[in-house]
Amino acid sequence: MRLAELSERSGVTTATIKYYLREGLLPPGRRITATQAEYGEDHLRRLRFVRALIQIGKVPVAAAREVLAAVEDESLTHHQRLGAATFALPHGPAPDENDPAVATARREVDSLMAEVGWRRDIEDYGPAPAYWTLVTAVAALTRLGYPSSARHLEPYARLAAQQAVHDMDLLEAYDTPLEQAGAAVALTVLLEPVLLSLRRLAEVEESRRREAVNHSA
Amino acid sequence: MRLAELSERSGVTTATIKYYLREGLLPPGRRITATQAEYGEDHLRRLRFVRALIQIGKVPVAAAREVLAAVEDESLTHHQRLGAATFALPHGPAPDENDPAVATARREVDSLMAEVGWRRDIEDYGPAPAYWTLVTAVAALTRLGYPSSARHLEPYARLAAQQAVHDMDLLEAYDTPLEQAGAAVALTVLLEPVLLSLRRLAEVEESRRREAVNHSA
Repeated sequence: MRLAELSERSGVTTATIKYYLREGLLPPGRRITATQAEYGEDHLRRLRFVRALIQIGKVPVAAAREVLAAVEDESLTHHQRLGAATFALPHGPAPDENDPAVATARREVDSLMAEVGWRRDIEDYGPAPAYWTLVTAVAALTRLGYPSSARHLEPYARLAAQQAVHDMDLLEAYDTPLEQAGAAVALTVLLEPVLLSLRRLAEVEESRRREAVNHSA
Repeated sequence: MRLAELSERSGVTTATIKYYLREGLLPPGRRITATQAEYGEDHLRRLRFVRALIQIGKVPVAAAREVLAAVEDESLTHHQRLGAATFALPHGPAPDENDPAVATARREVDSLMAEVGWRRDIEDYGPAPAYWTLVTAVAALTRLGYPSSARHLEPYARLAAQQAVHDMDLLEAYDTPLEQAGAAVALTVLLEPVLLSLRRLAEVEESRRREAVNHSA
């Protein structure tokens, strides 16, 4: 296909495709005239992946190049390739180690992860980026005097485990490691506002339900 | 208590407390000298609520004044008071009605809500703000070609209903409607990064679990 069709089918503008070609995020097409090149299905798949990473995931171009190399590295396991893609996503602020609420939060998060059976450290890597985001978020609850103990958070962790099962089921509908890694990035990010607004709607419903129960009691 | 103690116990600086007093978000203290006033437990409770709304919830001062009036209005039900507080929270962008993906997303969201038994319209109000945020978020999935049908979203809605049960259980530990409404605002906001990072950690764990199953298969 020509550049225009590649743009149409990927939803990425031709200017952006040219930028990705210059940055080496896409291999050059097969040149057919001095000014035109031909692109194949492989370009389309790779372009969709780069779009997921950069446009949806907001991963910087330099990091995207490393992620692409990892996702296409056949010596890595599928699990490692998904990790390479999703760990590149921007994450929240790192915790301030001098804050006493952070020390408390780390103890609670570690005890929560032990309780639900999640490993904290990833081989050769240490904790996932989300571990530090979680510690920061739990420290904010602690500092402001809201419930933040492992016991309070455990029901949410168990529900998150069920969300993750659905997340991974959605990924299995994609064929190649590249497509799965792209979908992992896109769905991790795009489902976040969906999940948060579902929770807010569910809170309205649960509040109404409890009101009705109290009225009839 | 004096202003300094009110500041210490609420975690709100004295400058901010003076600002809330000038804005009428806190009633004046009992004047004891020309320059000093005495504040009570009621001031502290109200200050904690205002802090939750403005500092945690990022609700503008004018809106906070209306929310306070609603939360202290004894003619309203408990459910209505919680709604007055949480609906004032800033919400995501409204959907663009001219976007065909938005029309598709509305159909899917309406069918999802019907499936899980949530009412879309709130008496005299229409849909909750989170309904529009959800439509916008689902439209983004639709537009980019990711799974966004009611069938795909239903498992997440059922998990959100369980999150809401825990959310409301946490609120019931607070005594007064004012404290519950403040906790509703604070926990809605402060638990969001907790829930999102728990999901990302759970995804790592689920990916590892599937890898282990595949290896042993």
